[in-house]
Amino acid sequence: MKPLGPVPNTFSDKNGILAIDDEDAEALVARAGRTPLFVYSRALIRTRVARLRAALPAEIALHYAVKANPYKPVLETLLEDVDGFDIASGGELDLVVAAGIDPRQVSFAGPGKRDDELFKAIGLGVTLNVESENEARRALRLAEAAGRPPRIAIRVNPEFDLKGSGMKMGGGAKPFGLDAERVPALVREVVAGGAEWRGFHIFAGSQALSAEHIIETQAQTLQLAARLAEQGGAGCPHLNLGGGFGIPYFPGDEPLDLERVGAALAERLAVRPAVLAETRMCLELGRYLVGEAGVYLTRIVDRKVSHGEVFLITDGGMHHQLAASGNFGTVVRRNYPVAIASRFGAPVEEEASVVGCLCTPLDRLADKAGLPRAEVGDLVAVFCAGAYGATASPMQFLGQGPAAELMV
Amino acid sequence: MKPLGPVPNTFSDKNGILAIDDEDAEALVARAGRTPLFVYSRALIRTRVARLRAALPAEIALHYAVKANPYKPVLETLLEDVDGFDIASGGELDLVVAAGIDPRQVSFAGPGKRDDELFKAIGLGVTLNVESENEARRALRLAEAAGRPPRIAIRVNPEFDLKGSGMKMGGGAKPFGLDAERVPALVREVVAGGAEWRGFHIFAGSQALSAEHIIETQAQTLQLAARLAEQGGAGCPHLNLGGGFGIPYFPGDEPLDLERVGAALAERLAVRPAVLAETRMCLELGRYLVGEAGVYLTRIVDRKVSHGEVFLITDGGMHHQLAASGNFGTVVRRNYPVAIASRFGAPVEEEASVVGCLCTPLDRLADKAGLPRAEVGDLVAVFCAGAYGATASPMQFLGQGPAAELMV
Repeated sequence: MKPLGPVPNTFSDKNGILAIDDEDAEALVARAGRTPLFVYSRALIRTRVARLRAALPAEIALHYAVKANPYKPVLETLLEDVDGFDIASGGELDLVVAAGIDPRQVSFAGPGKRDDELFKAIGLGVTLNVESENEARRALRLAEAAGRPPRIAIRVNPEFDLKGSGMKMGGGAKPFGLDAERVPALVREVVAGGAEWRGFHIFAGSQALSAEHIIETQAQTLQLAARLAEQGGAGCPHLNLGGGFGIPYFPGDEPLDLERVGAALAERLAVRPAVLAETRMCLELGRYLVGEAGVYLTRIVDRKVSHGEVFLITDGGMHHQLAASGNFGTVVRRNYPVAIASRFGAPVEEEASVVGCLCTPLDRLADKAGLPRAEVGDLVAVFCAGAYGATASPMQFLGQGPAAELMV
Repeated sequence: MKPLGPVPNTFSDKNGILAIDDEDAEALVARAGRTPLFVYSRALIRTRVARLRAALPAEIALHYAVKANPYKPVLETLLEDVDGFDIASGGELDLVVAAGIDPRQVSFAGPGKRDDELFKAIGLGVTLNVESENEARRALRLAEAAGRPPRIAIRVNPEFDLKGSGMKMGGGAKPFGLDAERVPALVREVVAGGAEWRGFHIFAGSQALSAEHIIETQAQTLQLAARLAEQGGAGCPHLNLGGGFGIPYFPGDEPLDLERVGAALAERLAVRPAVLAETRMCLELGRYLVGEAGVYLTRIVDRKVSHGEVFLITDGGMHHQLAASGNFGTVVRRNYPVAIASRFGAPVEEEASVVGCLCTPLDRLADKAGLPRAEVGDLVAVFCAGAYGATASPMQFLGQGPAAELMV
């Protein structure tokens, strides 16, 4: 038997069925009209934001990384709760505009921005986190055509990475941002070119669970920003400290000690270098805001035994849950938190593998897990489905199409 | 420098630019209106089918596995060239019907077929490759409601796998098909239940390059089918031998010796057991028919140097090329065949990594490859993009959306 990841303790059962915001999973499926279904809880998102506000220094603004989950009701919820939005494409710009977000609250990062994306973003007053000299020059040129100065920050490729992070975004040769030693010259160039100077974006990694590593990275980030602000000669009006706050997906994962991170950041800000005295700082979080607020529900359409092993075959799968299937940047497949939603909290009765409906052995949602005995018609829940689920999976694979989505 | 996969020898240059069916890549992009773009060559698909027909015994029917590439013009091309189509979902059923394919030429496999999918397929006369007793019984029940007998074949989980295959679909506990020892009883049950008995579907693996392994698997498949045909007492009107024919993706991969496979199969059929004398046999091929006929074209939007390493940043990426990025069932990332399409055949001048436009280090199309020096505006080609590309990738990730597609 292989362990399952930890189910977030924010979920409980209602008459033996998983409940999300006090509505049981079957009722939610009935409301959506079908499975597979992503359910996102507004209350859980709000609780998470409130916990962040309480733990972090008041001056730290919160930004949402839209890539984690661009579902419109998620954006509309966060519109009331966070201070800014970070996008990664012209497509995401369209989504935030459609959700009623003021483009002046938006920053745009991404190593391969096309001219048409830059032009649209400049016209709307989006801050560009430029990732190279070439991109900065394109932005200045396009801004002339747009008839307004571009708002430019520089994304820095830091010398350090975020230790223990799932994805390292710094520390060595990277396609992201500009190597630190070339940043001061580009600051001078964009300021001289008439840009509205916005500051720095420094992102060293994502999905870290160690407070110690995040604290260390934030200290390094402040130090680097201060040095670049001095050297560039234009200060640092805004500083995007990155994010990197992880959530527990796998057996043995422990939640991040948020309060410790907040306290350390407050201490560090108290002794910040003078050049950052007026800097407005933000954290850019995606997964940490919404990941644990989402559940993926899929119905068992077959239960079969092959060579003595039990397979629960669902109507969902890796086409909506690529990361849970172990095919998204993980080397060794481990089980996400998965449960039989329609027998939530029931004792373990057997070992079973939960698989999707695709004709590929890659389509596995839980491998040899200890579960209550489930039958055809039962609902399976995959937790931590609020981020990098629906849009980070090959939804058109095998002609399946997207899952339903529901905000409660 | 890391090696690149082998570019199929069916491509050449036209005035230094990659040509597909004698049209250069820039002209193709102009015709499609944008990058990123998948181009599929009808001539290359036809050539591949013709080679198969020449190499294989005449009695072997050719089926196309729609999952490899469901683009409508691909289906329309193959409609004229192959004998049947294999689908894996109700969504794919809609696609084949829309392409004008007769549903009676279609078989439907997949471990998690929903009732609505079964009902529609039965009504249209599609052959169901049932994957469990439960599914067979559901099909019989739904057929009563549909007022016509279901056409049923049984998918068998063989005791053997296809050695050296990229995906093993047999040999041990599997969610696919029915363990062989339970097959005869189910044959009797579906025949007694009034089904039109269609035979067996035995699929042991995919993406194998060794003729020897395929020959061995085909021999085992015939043996197993003969045994089950005897034991089930209903013979085997049709036998889907599976596929498993691979294409070279990676450095060192050698093409499959198709002629050797064909000759061995002919020999084997000549001495087949009497119970298979009247059996109509087919091979189900997806990737092998269309994979090498497709090229993904993406334009370089930035060229940057970080810590001495060159990055060519494109407007495409893993959202269309999940497998090429190394995130689809591969443990160790290796380079696909990739070239600078706008400098095709030019000598290697530098080491560069080709990355996509997504904000993730996973988005890499070629790692530290030897390439001619490329500039912003150059076109990159990823080869072997005709199968498991567009629909097997998370196209909505980071708000990107689908690539353009073009059949030439």
